[in-house]
Amino acid sequence: MPPTATLSASSSLNYLFPIPPSPSSSFTSTPSPTSCYFHSCTKKFSSLRFKPNKPNMTRSAVSIEKETPETERPITFLRESEGADVRARFEKMIREAQDSVCAAIEAVDKGGKFKEKEDVWSRPGGGGGISRVLQDGAVWEKAGVNVSVVYGVMPPEAYRAAKAAPADQKPGPVPFFAAGISSVLHPKNPFAPTLHFNYRYFETDAPQDVPGAPRQWWFGGGTDLTPAYIFDEDVKHFHSTQKKACDKFDPTFYPRFKKWCDDYFYIKHRGERRGLGGIFFDDLNDYDQEMLLSFATECANSVVPAYIPIIEKRKDTPFTDHHKAWQQLRRGRYVEFNLVYDRGTTFGLKTGGRIESILVSLPLSARWEYDHKPEEGSEEWKLLDACINPKEWI
Amino acid sequence: MPPTATLSASSSLNYLFPIPPSPSSSFTSTPSPTSCYFHSCTKKFSSLRFKPNKPNMTRSAVSIEKETPETERPITFLRESEGADVRARFEKMIREAQDSVCAAIEAVDKGGKFKEKEDVWSRPGGGGGISRVLQDGAVWEKAGVNVSVVYGVMPPEAYRAAKAAPADQKPGPVPFFAAGISSVLHPKNPFAPTLHFNYRYFETDAPQDVPGAPRQWWFGGGTDLTPAYIFDEDVKHFHSTQKKACDKFDPTFYPRFKKWCDDYFYIKHRGERRGLGGIFFDDLNDYDQEMLLSFATECANSVVPAYIPIIEKRKDTPFTDHHKAWQQLRRGRYVEFNLVYDRGTTFGLKTGGRIESILVSLPLSARWEYDHKPEEGSEEWKLLDACINPKEWI
Repeated sequence: MPPTATLSASSSLNYLFPIPPSPSSSFTSTPSPTSCYFHSCTKKFSSLRFKPNKPNMTRSAVSIEKETPETERPITFLRESEGADVRARFEKMIREAQDSVCAAIEAVDKGGKFKEKEDVWSRPGGGGGISRVLQDGAVWEKAGVNVSVVYGVMPPEAYRAAKAAPADQKPGPVPFFAAGISSVLHPKNPFAPTLHFNYRYFETDAPQDVPGAPRQWWFGGGTDLTPAYIFDEDVKHFHSTQKKACDKFDPTFYPRFKKWCDDYFYIKHRGERRGLGGIFFDDLNDYDQEMLLSFATECANSVVPAYIPIIEKRKDTPFTDHHKAWQQLRRGRYVEFNLVYDRGTTFGLKTGGRIESILVSLPLSARWEYDHKPEEGSEEWKLLDACINPKEWI
Repeated sequence: MPPTATLSASSSLNYLFPIPPSPSSSFTSTPSPTSCYFHSCTKKFSSLRFKPNKPNMTRSAVSIEKETPETERPITFLRESEGADVRARFEKMIREAQDSVCAAIEAVDKGGKFKEKEDVWSRPGGGGGISRVLQDGAVWEKAGVNVSVVYGVMPPEAYRAAKAAPADQKPGPVPFFAAGISSVLHPKNPFAPTLHFNYRYFETDAPQDVPGAPRQWWFGGGTDLTPAYIFDEDVKHFHSTQKKACDKFDPTFYPRFKKWCDDYFYIKHRGERRGLGGIFFDDLNDYDQEMLLSFATECANSVVPAYIPIIEKRKDTPFTDHHKAWQQLRRGRYVEFNLVYDRGTTFGLKTGGRIESILVSLPLSARWEYDHKPEEGSEEWKLLDACINPKEWI
């Protein structure tokens, strides 16, 4: 193996890693194509290796080392020196959210347990994560809920704030911290929708070698619903719960994040969205940090009330092979989005993240029929129409 | 719509389009990452639009217009002025191969017919294609066999031979011709393997504005086998048939093209190949043109004897849910390769090709289980091992 500088980060972290936000990029309706996300699924811990282009100078060519499995969950994945700051409070929040979402899912599923498929990992220098997967349960065919905490170093090119420094002064690699929760829940019943959510917090240190270049932090995340069939009351309930969470903080949040979500989950080659949206935001740092921490907490806590009542209502609805085949076709679209467009997934695959964790977002099964076109006016057609022409649900 | 120069090409053509071969690139074992292929599936006809960067000068930003459906197959898709040259003979060859492969498949399948799903299209300026799909037959769950003929213009950046011209003289857009056959055949029985093949011929005109820059032509293609379970005799038969076709022309062909195939169908994030390979080549122009036309013809004609005997032997083998689930997991790998790595597919999706034709290569259904690991020494493990460590089968 060639000599490299080993730096700590996880594959999930890679989703956040290359591009920190520029202050002006917040609330752009189309996220920049180079942005990276703590998205799809957070991953097992591992480390990044930067292969120096010049000795001790710029670094590129990322690859990832294997994580270290743990038999028990530690109280925190943070480094010892860190206390009750935003990092610690965000970790606490996402770990509580993981517990409460998993508990709610197990309570409904009855047949499936997450604990049979829990993977815990850590790293001596700090950081780690917990992956939980429930597969082939009574209600869900595949449900993954992951948290991770990562320490790493980003290449200087990624640290946009360096622009604030004199042009002839460029920072060296910038240490960063990232933590997030990420989940995809695929039910069996074709009338019960898939849910995806993830919430993430990111910090960089201030580059020590460039006076005036600031420390950065930001929040990102979202919750979105992907049904195969539309029940207006379900979609309204889901979007209303998102709006309610948003409105507690800023009346502009829901409309902006709803549009951002519709724009992000776009399957360009199909001209349609993956599902019926929800909220999505990234690079959020131009609000009070405490306020945004509370907002992310509110969003994560809204997952259960937004989703579980819909599942309770639809999980036992009788269905035919026709309904199941349509759900499977829509699952095919989910696969297309995640493998072709989702930045977290595509970045994770390219940089050598833990594949099983990255691809836990894929459904247990999916289907592709040649030139399938739902009959105009049918229930399938209505779903497709809503994916092509995003609607205001509330 | 902004003013653009409308240029003729099909989405399938896009697979060929951006990068013509440089003489030195033939037989590289790893195809260049920017190469494009007439791969996966040939597509419905449409046109390219280049958005000029500078008026009447360089062009980029490709997008594709819709094709014109036809009710009948024309005798030829070539322009009237063209006669009995390589273009015409290659078109004749691929159309005959389409007929014979489809006839062989229908004869075995009995339950399914291609003709119910035939799409013919053309373009007034010349070019067109025929897509045939058999879906949910008795033996195959999805089988697509497509041919297309395309006239287009490639941007000057893609015409590498311009390097032969003085550095200060760059050609304008270079007219090209492309024709190919492409097919993916996914059987139902988990012991019956998937087959993919495609053969393509490409020509450019000599750039008229750069004296000395030559007319170019080249051949590409391959045939590869993707079983879920290994029967040594099947894989040996398949590879032997490929070798026999190769050996008629050059004893170096089979070993080189076998390795090229193993290298091309590599799912990097899994560290494994999609299947058990076969042959693959591209940019082939440093042999006699007549010889290569005969070689491509021989390869196309070898598809039926290489594949159909295996299907006859395995199509009715009894199987369990366990076998079917493993086949579905391997189909998931097929989806991963095609959506993440296959150049034809990814290029087609990005440039707005006919989606249903591009994605006809995807299986009818596929499966992803979290952290699935076949038991060591099992039949599933043996297949996986052969995908991770390519073997010499003959």
